Amino acid sequence: MESVNQFELTKEFLERFGEAIESHDILFIQASLSGVNSADISALLHEFDSKDSKYVLELLDVETGSEIIKGLDPDTRLEFLSEFETNEISKYVNELDSDDAADIVNELPIKIREAVIDGLDNEEKASNVLELLRYDEDCAGGLMAKELIKANANWTIGKTIDEIRRQAEDVQKVYAVYVVDDGDKLLGRVSLKRIVLADDHMKVSSIYDQEVVAVETYMEEVEVASVMRKYDLEAVPVINMQGKLVGRITIDDIVDVITDLAEQERQLMAGISEDVEEDDSVWVLTRARLPWLVIGMIGGLLGALFMETFEKNITLTLTFFIPLIMATGGNVGIQSSSLVVQGLANKSAFSQTTYRRLGKVFWVAILNGVLLAIMVFLGVQFVMGNGFRLALIVSLALLSVVLLASFMGTATPLILDKFGINPALASGPFITTANDLLGLAVYFGVAHILYTL
Amino acid sequence: MESVNQFELTKEFLERFGEAIESHDILFIQASLSGVNSADISALLHEFDSKDSKYVLELLDVETGSEIIKGLDPDTRLEFLSEFETNEISKYVNELDSDDAADIVNELPIKIREAVIDGLDNEEKASNVLELLRYDEDCAGGLMAKELIKANANWTIGKTIDEIRRQAEDVQKVYAVYVVDDGDKLLGRVSLKRIVLADDHMKVSSIYDQEVVAVETYMEEVEVASVMRKYDLEAVPVINMQGKLVGRITIDDIVDVITDLAEQERQLMAGISEDVEEDDSVWVLTRARLPWLVIGMIGGLLGALFMETFEKNITLTLTFFIPLIMATGGNVGIQSSSLVVQGLANKSAFSQTTYRRLGKVFWVAILNGVLLAIMVFLGVQFVMGNGFRLALIVSLALLSVVLLASFMGTATPLILDKFGINPALASGPFITTANDLLGLAVYFGVAHILYTL
Repeated sequence: MESVNQFELTKEFLERFGEAIESHDILFIQASLSGVNSADISALLHEFDSKDSKYVLELLDVETGSEIIKGLDPDTRLEFLSEFETNEISKYVNELDSDDAADIVNELPIKIREAVIDGLDNEEKASNVLELLRYDEDCAGGLMAKELIKANANWTIGKTIDEIRRQAEDVQKVYAVYVVDDGDKLLGRVSLKRIVLADDHMKVSSIYDQEVVAVETYMEEVEVASVMRKYDLEAVPVINMQGKLVGRITIDDIVDVITDLAEQERQLMAGISEDVEEDDSVWVLTRARLPWLVIGMIGGLLGALFMETFEKNITLTLTFFIPLIMATGGNVGIQSSSLVVQGLANKSAFSQTTYRRLGKVFWVAILNGVLLAIMVFLGVQFVMGNGFRLALIVSLALLSVVLLASFMGTATPLILDKFGINPALASGPFITTANDLLGLAVYFGVAHILYTL
Repeated sequence: MESVNQFELTKEFLERFGEAIESHDILFIQASLSGVNSADISALLHEFDSKDSKYVLELLDVETGSEIIKGLDPDTRLEFLSEFETNEISKYVNELDSDDAADIVNELPIKIREAVIDGLDNEEKASNVLELLRYDEDCAGGLMAKELIKANANWTIGKTIDEIRRQAEDVQKVYAVYVVDDGDKLLGRVSLKRIVLADDHMKVSSIYDQEVVAVETYMEEVEVASVMRKYDLEAVPVINMQGKLVGRITIDDIVDVITDLAEQERQLMAGISEDVEEDDSVWVLTRARLPWLVIGMIGGLLGALFMETFEKNITLTLTFFIPLIMATGGNVGIQSSSLVVQGLANKSAFSQTTYRRLGKVFWVAILNGVLLAIMVFLGVQFVMGNGFRLALIVSLALLSVVLLASFMGTATPLILDKFGINPALASGPFITTANDLLGLAVYFGVAHILYTL
């Protein structure tokens, strides 16, 4: 048994492996990779350049090679595959499941895609990949694989097992056998366990389960993920508008979808505008970060302009509390929007109405705002000794800012969601910049009113 | 075939169903729920109170009932189960897989846990649940289920199929059969597909796959998730320190782990200190939000005190740019920390050394900082016409703040991670508050130096 930690990328091994590549020590390379999981080899190859990786890959069999290529991350893979001729790429793609094959072909430069597909030995694979490329990446059609095992409802178990034997060669993981009618319309499913336990002469129609959850090709991946989570499915059949079985989505693809979505949300919340990783180049990282920084900067300059315009209404002492007002507004805004984003992500069939939701947000804001305002009033009046009027201005402004930021933080993601924009955008610099400006306006507005009174 | 959307919770249905409960219309309730997926019934019951839900549940068979209880969210479930006698709870728990059973028992008040376990009809289930309760919730032992199918390496396929037939009754989803020796030590696995395709008289030892990835009971759930993702596993066997097979973790549990972790991270980034949802009470929501707001407020008051102390060095015009400095520092800090958090989440065996990482952060910060400083200098000098010295002060301070915030944003999550604290904490109000104070100090420090020159 190979335990998880058996293959460890130690510094020593990496060095030795690098030397082996340089000196073309084929025996060492093959011996040290024999029996190693392809995912571990992919991780290993990330440490070497494309030329060296290609040299290693060609010492292994094509099936292992194709799994290794599948395990590389997309950027590395694109660079790596640029070392290959199209017919070599075809050779590896030919070994993969149609969904992985389509994903990899989709990453290639448009001009070589066709050549790679033409080069696939397996004609069925070629037509499957072509079909999958037609679907939008973010929908069920773009996630599904064509490989699945299906049985006609009229078959006997004996014939079904023979057919499984025939079909199973192409299907890596068999979760269930899908039952279809003569027109390929999905009727239901029967688990492999059930087939193993049934008698050979029984008919599929007498043992299959009609209550199968299926998704349609155009369903969004987020929704597919929530359906599979809700019903605890390890695989879900995909049907077209006519109810015909066209593919299957497995849970490992959904795990990737969920992880990607979480990562995307983190980047939106952090104001990073491209899908970057720490090991990207300085320039790529800068380009990803600059847009929101510039927007924040413009917000800051507008704030300065605003204050300049109202210069005569502003005293120096008043400005001491700008950081307080801004920080609180920012924090409240992000808290509010995150809760809405979370609510939208977990939306149940009957979520609260917008009206009730806004009502509750209002009460939470009032409670938070009043508590903070009291603390700040006491702090400014008694601890800092800045006098009653200033304490009143700061605490009233703070209360107003908490209310406004709550409202903005709640409304913005709901509005974005209505327009089909990822609502998590509203938990990032977007809401902070807006709140900063609003906070300043409210603060100096309150001050102006109270000083004039 | 039941399509996904067939059971929809329309307002009309909910009303009709509510009336049926009130008038004890058993026929309508049973007819409308017959053949409906338990996950849909769980969603339906979330719309009714515990008493009504109990009434509905008792009209259904125990197996469906147990699945419905499993599908409720933990808060609702606890409230709901408080309506039941312990022996009634046992009756439902008895039907569940050991991992779900242990999770539900674990949520119950301590004083009734033992009674519920004692009340389980199935003695094996009782001892399994007791065993699982011993493990920490966040590790492989706490995630695993005891139900799995295992075969001795010396058995024939015929005997194995007989044994599967016997064991499979308890196991809902069979992914693979684990192969063990006489001492229950895990040797490998064999897929159900392979068994279906093999001859009855062959020995398990001749067809099983020795390269099985296993995890140990104490492995953290995050790590289990990354192992299952890396190796694309739908289930992973769990072994104890002696290599004995003790349980199995399925991918649906990992999907929950990943979703929970993403939610937890979102809350940390948003400064929400409890696991709350939008539909919690006003008081719970306030309590979850107040702590970070208070910390932000204290930061703001400290900022005011700081400015008061240096009052004579500060001109009113200088304060116009406080929002700019603060907003930029906050944005840069959160961008930096998020990238580190992402890097830590995806850590590969050979990630960059801390030294190289900090070096790159420095160059990205310099590039971002210089670009922003130039824009701000031009804005302040030419657009706003505030003069050369002020433009220089603001842009130099901005550059320094970008550098400092980058450094803080990078170092803080790394330090938190070293101390075993979730690094995502550093992407929230924590880093913002610290950056606000630091930003003020840098800004007025730079101003002081340049005015004195």
